[in-house]
Amino acid sequence: MIIAVVGTGKDCPPDAYSLAESVGREIAQRGHTVICGGLNGVMEGACKGAKEAGGATIGILPGEDPSAANPWVEIPIATGMGYARNLIVVRSAAAVIAIDGAYGTLSEVAHALGFFIPVIGLKTWSITRPEGTVDEGVIVADGPAEAVERAVHAASSDVRGPG
Amino acid sequence: MIIAVVGTGKDCPPDAYSLAESVGREIAQRGHTVICGGLNGVMEGACKGAKEAGGATIGILPGEDPSAANPWVEIPIATGMGYARNLIVVRSAAAVIAIDGAYGTLSEVAHALGFFIPVIGLKTWSITRPEGTVDEGVIVADGPAEAVERAVHAASSDVRGPG
Amino acid sequence: MIIAVVGTGKDCPPDAYSLAESVGREIAQRGHTVICGGLNGVMEGACKGAKEAGGATIGILPGEDPSAANPWVEIPIATGMGYARNLIVVRSAAAVIAIDGAYGTLSEVAHALGFFIPVIGLKTWSITRPEGTVDEGVIVADGPAEAVERAVHAASSDVRGPG
Amino acid sequence: MIIAVVGTGKDCPPDAYSLAESVGREIAQRGHTVICGGLNGVMEGACKGAKEAGGATIGILPGEDPSAANPWVEIPIATGMGYARNLIVVRSAAAVIAIDGAYGTLSEVAHALGFFIPVIGLKTWSITRPEGTVDEGVIVADGPAEAVERAVHAASSDVRGPG
Repeated sequence: MIIAVVGTGKDCPPDAYSLAESVGREIAQRGHTVICGGLNGVMEGACKGAKEAGGATIGILPGEDPSAANPWVEIPIATGMGYARNLIVVRSAAAVIAIDGAYGTLSEVAHALGFFIPVIGLKTWSITRPEGTVDEGVIVADGPAEAVERAVHAASSDVRGPG
Repeated sequence: MIIAVVGTGKDCPPDAYSLAESVGREIAQRGHTVICGGLNGVMEGACKGAKEAGGATIGILPGEDPSAANPWVEIPIATGMGYARNLIVVRSAAAVIAIDGAYGTLSEVAHALGFFIPVIGLKTWSITRPEGTVDEGVIVADGPAEAVERAVHAASSDVRGPG
Repeated sequence: MIIAVVGTGKDCPPDAYSLAESVGREIAQRGHTVICGGLNGVMEGACKGAKEAGGATIGILPGEDPSAANPWVEIPIATGMGYARNLIVVRSAAAVIAIDGAYGTLSEVAHALGFFIPVIGLKTWSITRPEGTVDEGVIVADGPAEAVERAVHAASSDVRGPG
Repeated sequence: MIIAVVGTGKDCPPDAYSLAESVGREIAQRGHTVICGGLNGVMEGACKGAKEAGGATIGILPGEDPSAANPWVEIPIATGMGYARNLIVVRSAAAVIAIDGAYGTLSEVAHALGFFIPVIGLKTWSITRPEGTVDEGVIVADGPAEAVERAVHAASSDVRGPG
């Protein structure tokens, strides 16, 4: 199973980086693969955690140069499409784990929910519709292990839709 | 000035369609151009309102066929890139007006805020950061005329950033 | 009708720029619109020629900033998707006129032919399949007026296909 | 090293499929990874050959559904960006091997050459510039083993440029 980890890139707070590292490790220990945006912050933490636990890591890069990936990315994919690569990250995943994050992360969470790909949140955006929402939205987790467990569980009952 | 109108596509409620029509008209009457996703619902309403008031309309389509645009799109741009076209809609605009809308709209609002492009909301998403937010976020308007006025005003002091 | 003009960008030879200017003028004089990649060289020449003849011009930009367009682009569309914007240029056109050009131009010619969008060539790539080709390929024109006439004619019998 | 294999998709002639299978096998036997468009024809042959030889395979899909990949794709990446995914295939590779192929393949060859990524051709497009060309263009190989050897060799002296 390929699980996306999205969140703060530059100026990432140390606790978000640590959370990402733990999430990456938990994903790898269960035999799954990490996919992310391939750069720094939460993306790097997740790759580092996964790689050090013997897991596989994919980085979907915004730029044209595969060598711009962080050193824990095993498979760098160079899109050259800037932020549009965010859609590729979430679409290629069975579930998305969002950690901290600014508007780029919010856009990834929104894209994932629109595609009926489950999203697990760790200290990230809460989403409120004006007049309530019929779907589950972001599933809040208390820690890395719970986040990965919920992601794997939710992905097993994943039903994709038209967005 | 090019102003984006984003919001519900299929299954658009009639009042959102009407709001979009009024927004399109107000944009055209001030001499500005509407850009949108080129399909139905809010996108169609905005184009219809603008076109009937003598304004110009641009539709950035998800598919490969320019003829899939709604009949009030003057300039259909066929991207063939699916939802990634949402980024093109907001990036090409000086300001974004969001009306109603599901997760696709939320992703556009997020992308716009990430690029420091001002977003005016009409009956749409409210956005809450976990621990508060330093920026303005979505500017709430009470009606179409106010929304367009706020969009034009905000666009004049627009400072774009790295997202 | 929207007609794409593609060709050399930076380091554009003066005669290619002049050809592009004439092509833009001929397009505008027939009441059609120019679409291009929005930057310099052939793209700029085509926009300048069209604009000075009172025509409309659309620039599909690789970057994220609409203000990077050349000064003769009336409608700048900021894709932020780098060279992937080449596909948008040709897909949004009823016909493509290619002038001079390097590999970027060749890719646009190839995409257009793959989509059954007619391509007219002025001092540009000749295309040879290993064992001959069943389709027309690039239609060679002798000058700007002939190129635009052939483009308009071919576009009228345009049948799009799956690429 | 990640090596792209591009070529005919649907209606792929049996000999091109066989060539692709051998190319995939040769890539895997040298310890390298295959990247391709993830669908059928040459893409499938290359993945099958690599996978059966114990190699890794990446499929960059045009659609939104990872499960649309051919059964020999180990890592399916769902772009949802149609033919724009062709750019991602070549950009993520150290070298490109083109086999047979129609206009989609030509566009990939052109993009690769534009990015100074070496291209090795097997029964594919010959490319002729109007007034000669300063660069090497497509390197013609006589068979699968020679193609992979030339690809690996050329990639070692790869200098990427601005396209």
